Amino acid sequence: MKEVSKLLDYRSDIKVVDATVRDGGLVNDFYFTDEFVSDLYKANIEAGVDYMEFGYKASKKLFDVDKFGKWKFCNDDDIRSIVGENNTDLKIAVMADVGRCDYKNDIAPKSESPIDLVRVATYIHTIPEAVDMIEDACKKGYQASCNIMAISNARESELSAALDILGKTPVDVFYIVDSFGALYPEQLERLADIYLNFAAKYNKKVGIHAHNNLQLAFANTVEAAGIGIDWLDATYSSMGRGAGNCAMELLLGFLKNPKYEIYPVFKFIEKHMTALKENGVVWGYDLQYLMTGLLNQHPRTAIKFTKDARKDYANFYKEIITEEV
Amino acid sequence: MKEVSKLLDYRSDIKVVDATVRDGGLVNDFYFTDEFVSDLYKANIEAGVDYMEFGYKASKKLFDVDKFGKWKFCNDDDIRSIVGENNTDLKIAVMADVGRCDYKNDIAPKSESPIDLVRVATYIHTIPEAVDMIEDACKKGYQASCNIMAISNARESELSAALDILGKTPVDVFYIVDSFGALYPEQLERLADIYLNFAAKYNKKVGIHAHNNLQLAFANTVEAAGIGIDWLDATYSSMGRGAGNCAMELLLGFLKNPKYEIYPVFKFIEKHMTALKENGVVWGYDLQYLMTGLLNQHPRTAIKFTKDARKDYANFYKEIITEEV
Repeated sequence: MKEVSKLLDYRSDIKVVDATVRDGGLVNDFYFTDEFVSDLYKANIEAGVDYMEFGYKASKKLFDVDKFGKWKFCNDDDIRSIVGENNTDLKIAVMADVGRCDYKNDIAPKSESPIDLVRVATYIHTIPEAVDMIEDACKKGYQASCNIMAISNARESELSAALDILGKTPVDVFYIVDSFGALYPEQLERLADIYLNFAAKYNKKVGIHAHNNLQLAFANTVEAAGIGIDWLDATYSSMGRGAGNCAMELLLGFLKNPKYEIYPVFKFIEKHMTALKENGVVWGYDLQYLMTGLLNQHPRTAIKFTKDARKDYANFYKEIITEEV
Repeated sequence: MKEVSKLLDYRSDIKVVDATVRDGGLVNDFYFTDEFVSDLYKANIEAGVDYMEFGYKASKKLFDVDKFGKWKFCNDDDIRSIVGENNTDLKIAVMADVGRCDYKNDIAPKSESPIDLVRVATYIHTIPEAVDMIEDACKKGYQASCNIMAISNARESELSAALDILGKTPVDVFYIVDSFGALYPEQLERLADIYLNFAAKYNKKVGIHAHNNLQLAFANTVEAAGIGIDWLDATYSSMGRGAGNCAMELLLGFLKNPKYEIYPVFKFIEKHMTALKENGVVWGYDLQYLMTGLLNQHPRTAIKFTKDARKDYANFYKEIITEEV
């Protein structure tokens, strides 16, 4: 059990990463207004958030620029139109997916870009390409993280091998990504232990990106912070794919570092997030996401159930539990 | 850290208590249809739930029977009209509030009643009356629990004194009641330690009743189960006052005892809970409840904000944070 002094103190090496536009963009195909993104940028600065993820660096060879909002692609100029020279303490991040990012061409040298951090998202079986992307990003002058997705399906032996490979790269942060929202805190603790051991060996940091299928995104993030994980992802109003993510408003309420301010988050939510929901953008905890989380499945069936405006939860459960795997 | 074997095993002394009608009744003044309560009773039996709380034993001297549904009063006859002789494994509970229950007159001897368990709800400063109610209930032949409310405001020294008094009564279970939904798992762990020590000394069980202001009702219940708390309260769709409670569907998904079945819960929710919400009964996590939870306040201001259909979250936060305490 923790000492009371630890409950009241804070670790100054915690970094809060706002992933609202990036993970939330998966819900509305990245069609955010410029006012939304600009107000979010300002709210993050006021709230003391450390990083703001603007979206993906998706390959324009694979994705049609006319079918998505601009934050699917995160051109440097589009980011600059929001942040100018970004003379603030808030750093700028983008996500680059293994296999879906033309990183050699689309990521310019850091000296020409407002971006600070490239978050490389990978499955455990695509680590070699992730390594190439990390090396490319670091050589260009960026910070890099490696976000290992669908971690609730990874075997410990493969995870250890992957972290040992990543440890030898210039990557700054290893991320636990609970894509299916399937981890209980006690399982997270075991996984984190593996990550933290390799992080100590290679002098890296560890981060967590949680999903809320079991209403545990915040609880798992709190658990993670308590056991030495420093990089914590959150989104305003939990906006994100499927059941959404750890809520920024919960996370900043929990963190005790006085540099974090919760009031700008409330103001932003009141102005923008309520309107998004009223305009029919749907995300967040619901039974169908609980079900895929419980079964440790990708949420795609639940997302379709949501899109189809179905309410026959019991039938849906029968469908996914009787499906051949 | 727990052993893997502990993560995969289960404790057969866990008891799941369905508090939907009792805590949910605080949202709709106990106006549930007979079909709702009867279907809930059947769903609980099918799901393997251990106790079903039917409502309060509220004093008819203090409360107008015409202004509330019948489960505010839980007449034995009303319960019998649902459960008959209740020849099932599901046990029947009611709640009796200190100061609001005419227990000497309104609670009949167990031999005349379908009720099995009387849950005495008290604040820490009204323990002497709670003791009298517990002794009355046990003398009449019931099991009894003592549910200490607003526990996030209790001082450890007073809590220890209270548990030492309660330990000497015939009460069966000490309950942690996080009325304000203000506890983080690491704080819960410290509180539980005090409870578990007195429970061991006096051969009692410990229970938890959580609220979801910080989206931690389920996480705290899981944490509680992991450290030796046996009695776990939950409600279907989290229905309960303010931000609601630990969701039954999450809890049964987590518990590994094969006697618990989640499918009847999904069926009940699909049939009844969705309809309740569509008919305008409002409960569950929202920003105003997060705010009172963060500030460790009674949710009454947030409940009023909800009833008034206000959406000016930022103003509300200013109101409650600047209020004199």
